[in-house]
This record gives sequence, structure tokens and C-alpha cells, in this order.
Amino acid sequence: MECKDVGILAMDMYFPPTCVQQEALEVHDGASKGKYTIGLGQDCMAFCSEVEDVISMSLTVVKSLLEKYHIDPKLIGRLEVGSETVIDKSKSIKTWLMQIFEESGNTDIEGVDSSNACYGGTAALLNCVNWVESRCWDGRYGLVVCTDSAVYAEGPARPTGGAAAIAMLIGPNAPISFESKYRASHMAHVYDFYKPDLASEYPVVDGKLSQTCYLMALDSCYRQYCAKYEKLVGEQFSISDADYCVFHSPYNKLVQKSFARLYFNDFMRNCSSVDNDAKEKLQPFANLTSEESYQSRDLEKGSQQLAKHLYDIKVQPSTLLPKQIGNMYTASLYAALASVIYNKHASLSGQRIVMFSYGSGLTSTMFSFKLNEGQHPFSLTNIASVLDVTAKLESRHVES
Amino acid sequence: MECKDVGILAMDMYFPPTCVQQEALEVHDGASKGKYTIGLGQDCMAFCSEVEDVISMSLTVVKSLLEKYHIDPKLIGRLEVGSETVIDKSKSIKTWLMQIFEESGNTDIEGVDSSNACYGGTAALLNCVNWVESRCWDGRYGLVVCTDSAVYAEGPARPTGGAAAIAMLIGPNAPISFESKYRASHMAHVYDFYKPDLASEYPVVDGKLSQTCYLMALDSCYRQYCAKYEKLVGEQFSISDADYCVFHSPYNKLVQKSFARLYFNDFMRNCSSVDNDAKEKLQPFANLTSEESYQSRDLEKGSQQLAKHLYDIKVQPSTLLPKQIGNMYTASLYAALASVIYNKHASLSGQRIVMFSYGSGLTSTMFSFKLNEGQHPFSLTNIASVLDVTAKLESRHVES
Repeated sequence: MECKDVGILAMDMYFPPTCVQQEALEVHDGASKGKYTIGLGQDCMAFCSEVEDVISMSLTVVKSLLEKYHIDPKLIGRLEVGSETVIDKSKSIKTWLMQIFEESGNTDIEGVDSSNACYGGTAALLNCVNWVESRCWDGRYGLVVCTDSAVYAEGPARPTGGAAAIAMLIGPNAPISFESKYRASHMAHVYDFYKPDLASEYPVVDGKLSQTCYLMALDSCYRQYCAKYEKLVGEQFSISDADYCVFHSPYNKLVQKSFARLYFNDFMRNCSSVDNDAKEKLQPFANLTSEESYQSRDLEKGSQQLAKHLYDIKVQPSTLLPKQIGNMYTASLYAALASVIYNKHASLSGQRIVMFSYGSGLTSTMFSFKLNEGQHPFSLTNIASVLDVTAKLESRHVES
Repeated sequence: MECKDVGILAMDMYFPPTCVQQEALEVHDGASKGKYTIGLGQDCMAFCSEVEDVISMSLTVVKSLLEKYHIDPKLIGRLEVGSETVIDKSKSIKTWLMQIFEESGNTDIEGVDSSNACYGGTAALLNCVNWVESRCWDGRYGLVVCTDSAVYAEGPARPTGGAAAIAMLIGPNAPISFESKYRASHMAHVYDFYKPDLASEYPVVDGKLSQTCYLMALDSCYRQYCAKYEKLVGEQFSISDADYCVFHSPYNKLVQKSFARLYFNDFMRNCSSVDNDAKEKLQPFANLTSEESYQSRDLEKGSQQLAKHLYDIKVQPSTLLPKQIGNMYTASLYAALASVIYNKHASLSGQRIVMFSYGSGLTSTMFSFKLNEGQHPFSLTNIASVLDVTAKLESRHVES
């Protein structure tokens, strides 16, 4: 059976039609002006109304994907869900979605729910891709659903909420295909964010620790990703080899910091992607211990400024939906990917997108996609058209 | 890279050293004599003491497996956990287990937790096997952990509790290898068992519905398993082609019913494995609708009697640990597999074990293993010796 270029054939996305502007939230919360818009880098936050939850959002997005790409439900052989929004402690979200397939008599669909904070969707995606590449693959499509509603107790984390569901169809000959060999993970036992109060929707979150963990995991994944690439390809890898860098986005400011951190990594690894002027300016930070480097505001600010011109090209196109919707937990990274596809689909063929998935607790993976236009209905153009981001954003009801 | 016969290379198991005899529980609960021992078919029920939980059990079993098979922690490339015992709504059990690997500097280990009732362990196992067979496999081992503590509110379900953790090492050239092509699943949206009260450990369970769902799922998986086998092999499949049938065991009585149900399926499909005497005796049930067939006590009793001689050979060796420990949720099916390996390791080479995994809600898969003695330390003999079941059972503290 043909099994080349396994990856994402099609995408669709649902997010609540209700949102609040971060500017209005600043006023409501009595926060200083710019705290959420500049401090966090966020524009709006979507939220579920009383008739929506992760189940309804995922039912909607799966039905919509099947319809819009004209996929017979019988052609799905695997369905996996990534989520950290617990509606039931035993029954998986996947079983709810089986309602859509039972009508067609297709009950032979492997997969359940994968869970670890914001990372579950990536686990589900990698599982689905492995299934297509494995000996048991029977030629049918995989389907991955990332669905979450992120809500926080009153306080500094509350403006980092959000909600969405994303569905992705998986198979061979994909326009968004995996470069399997360079995948690198960093997994560790940390309490940066967790949900020990089972009766509450709210997490316990240590914002500062969580941010450091995120950057440490990013460093570790990037180091290993580069090492694996270099071993196989025989050339140095640097951010100049990535056309786009897509990060899990709890809030945009951390994405800005993350890209700057990759730039600092490239400087420390003496990559030619860092120009001489930048090398000079970063030299004073070369001897920091890694712990010191996570804490240095000067390094953070300096590297962000130096990487700004590259950020605008390689990262900014991915930030549209995360800035407009907020943290979507498992859906966040794929909403950022959807933003790139939507914004840049006409020029993506032959390009590489490097992805960084992070879930507190913690689990993280860096991996990359190679893009090609593909064949209708599984083409970048059609995915961008189905996503229809501008219309969806414009039709929202904005609470003020 | 060599990638033949992917499956289970090694197993280890931990269960609490404390248990209660079902006979004593009958007296304590004021239940009629034999209600739990004959009615449920159970001997003992293990339970966690106040210093044990799913995390401690899984830490213990993973450390033990690595030590007993002399596996360098650096050689693990994937670690997945199946569980429905929620300790935290966000942080996966997998992250706790990373403590074991961080010491060796190995943080590049993919995988998170898979969850749907008792089925999560099977999802984790299939994911790990697919990973080894996929293009991204880097030659390292996978590790699957099934861990649960099953506790019920006072009432008829309470004696069906139990607790255990099982670890399985995954890789090529395995003594217990997958027959990937015949895998069949049945997935549906049902409320036979769920845990909607997030603050409680206890499930909401409809015992009668759950049993019917289990048997319906079994029928559906078996039908599809046979169809896939017959399409590929060109011969009819019947239980005579399985040397052992291993079922998820919430309580032993359901396992007895399940095997009889497969026998009835073989009768309905006119298989030669059903002798003429049995065909005559089952004829009166041939025209029942499937709904009627699930409700017929006469059919249940009759088919159990007719299948009894085969049950003793093909199923009974798998029932040791589930009868002695109780329902272990995700670990239950693999404790039954461990029982077969322990009891029959010397005669398993060349044989086929058919497995049926069920998780309420519902998710289910039937699949099969081919066995060979393997090479030390990954041999059936060594697995049986590491499992050391008799000594573990004999050293238990029995509450009476």
C-alpha cells in the first residue's frame, strides 16, 4: 500500500462565536492599560457559552470536516482525541464522537483520548501518523481532534483562557507531511501546572515556573532536534532552515520569548544564521549558566530585539488565531499551524514548518512538516478556504 | 532496521500485598453464600493500602521491570500509560514515571496517558507497537504501563474491585508478537459505566447494561476479526484456531459467558469447531434476534455447558490472577495474559492467543498474538520466572 508523505490531509476548526476583548478585560479587572494586550500580547479571548462544551465543539468540527471535504464516515479507521478538559473521569470524548460514525455502520475505529495538559493533541496526532505507517494500517484515514476549554480562577492567569476544537484528517500523500526522523521530545516530572482539585475546572498554576519549564523544554527539544537533523543530513541546522516556527501559545508574549530563545541557541551553537552584529551583542550572555540565562531580563529583551526581523517573517503569520482566541490548550498549536496555512497557503509549497508542542507537567516535542500544494480536496488552498478564518473571526459576538 | 515480530518482549506485574477473600466479604456484606465466589466467580480482591496508589504501583513495576531484565533506562524511546484512575486532571501518570529516566539523562521519551475506562492499556499497547513499526522508530524500546485501582460505592458492584500495575516492554523479535492484520474494534457511545462525579472515586455503573454491551462488542469484534482473517488467510476462523482466549475480566463469570458466546457465534456461523451434539442443542436458539439472545438465560446456560470442555483448556489458564486480584481495569486483560504465560510458558511456542479488550463507554478491540520461546532475557521462560506469580500470591496478607 502506498504510504509516502504521511501527515495532515485536511483541517477544520471551530471556536466559540463569543469572545471578550482583552482591552475591555483590562478595564473590567482594574488591570493597568496594556497588561493583557502588550504584556501578554493577546487581542481577544473566546469562551464557551452555556450551550457549548468540549464535546459539542468536537462533534461540530468533526461533522464539518467530513462534510466540507466530502469524506464518507466509513473511510475513517482511527479516531483519536487530545484534551485536558475532563467532562467524565472514565468515558472518553472519542466515544461521544462515535455517534457520527455509527449511523454509517462503521464502529471499527481504533483510538481513545490522549491526555497531558496542552500536549494531548500532539500525542494523538503522532499516534495517528504512526498507525498509518504501521503494519496494521488498512488504507483508511485517521482523524485527530484537539478540543479544550481553558478557564482559570480569578487572578493573573484568567485572561489567558480560551476555547476551540480542531480536527485533522491523517493519511499518506499529505500536503502537510511529517519529517519523522528529526522528532525530539523532552519529558519531565514537574508541578508547573496541574489540576489536583478534581471538583474544580481550574488549574493550579505557577506562571513563572511554567514559563521557565517551557523554555527549558524548548532548549532541550531544539538541541536534540538539531543533533538528529545534523546526524542524518550532515549539515548544521539553524532557524534559517525553518521557513516558519510554530509554538504552543498560552499567550503570545511567550511565543516571542521562545523564538528569541531559539535565536540565542543558534548564537551559542555558533550558527551562521546569527549575524556578526547580533553575535557581538549576545557575547556578554555567553557565559551565563542556563539557569541564569532563563532569569536574565537583559538577555530576554536583547535577543527579542535582535530576532525581531526574523520573528516577523517566520513566526508572526502563526499568531493570528492564538492572539484572537486565547489559549486553546491542545488545540493551540494547531490553531497556530492553521493560521500559517490560512495566511500563507499560496507560498508554502516546498517549505518547512518547525513545530513545538508543550504541555505542563511536563511533556514536549519538536517536530517538522514539509509542505506541498497537494491535490484537491487535500490541497493547501482548499484547507485555507475551509478554515475561512477571517469570516469566522468577523462574525463573532464581542462582549465589551 | 530489523522490525519483525513486533510485540511484548518482557512483562512485570505489581499488585497490592493486601487482599480480602470473597467468602469473607460475602459474610461481611450479609450476602448469600456463593454470591461472590460462584455468582461472580471470584476468589479474592486486592486493594491499595493507605501508602499505595496508581502512581506508586506503576513506579514500582517500571523500576522492577528495568532491573529484572537488565534494561538501561537510556534504551527506552517511548513510554505510555493506560489508566482510568484520575489522580490529577491535567498531569499525566507518564510524567511521574519520568523520574526513573531523568537520572540517566534520558528525557527524549515520547508518549502520554491513554484513557477510556478499562481499555486505555490496550490503546497504549497498540500505540507503542505502531510506533515501533513506523518510520520514526529509532531502534529503542517502547514501554507500556497499565495501572488502576478499581473501587466501588457500597452495593452490588463493590466486590468487583481490585488493583494492580503491569509493565510491558515493546520491540521487534518478541516472544509475544502481534498478528497485526486481524485487529478488529467496536467503538460506541454508551452510558453503561462512567464517572461523572469528578469529586468521587466511584463510577456510576449499570451492571446489566454493561454486561450486554460487553457481549455485543465481543460479537462485533469477533465477526470482524473472523472476516479479516478469512479474507487474508482464505480459511474459516473459529475458536479451534485459538489456543487460548484471553478476555478483559471485570469478574470471572463474565469471562465464562464470553467464551460461551464465541462458541455460539461459531455455531451461528456453522463452524466445524461446534460438534453435532452441540449444534442440535443450540438449534432452538438459532432464530433469536440478537437482542433476545443476550437476554436468554437458557442460551447462556446451555452454551456455557456445551463450551465447558473447551473453556477448561483455552480460557481457564488465563483466569488465575483476575480471580485472585479482582478487576484491575486497564491491567486486567494483561494480568490474564500474564496468567497464561505463567501457567503454560513451556508449551506456548507456535501457539496463538486471541485477546479481547473492553472498556465501558465504550471501546473494544480483538487482536491476537503468536508465541515463540524467544531469546533470554526476552523468553517466555524468563517472563514466567520474573512474574513469579505463586510466590507473590502466597506472600499476601489476607484480611478476613
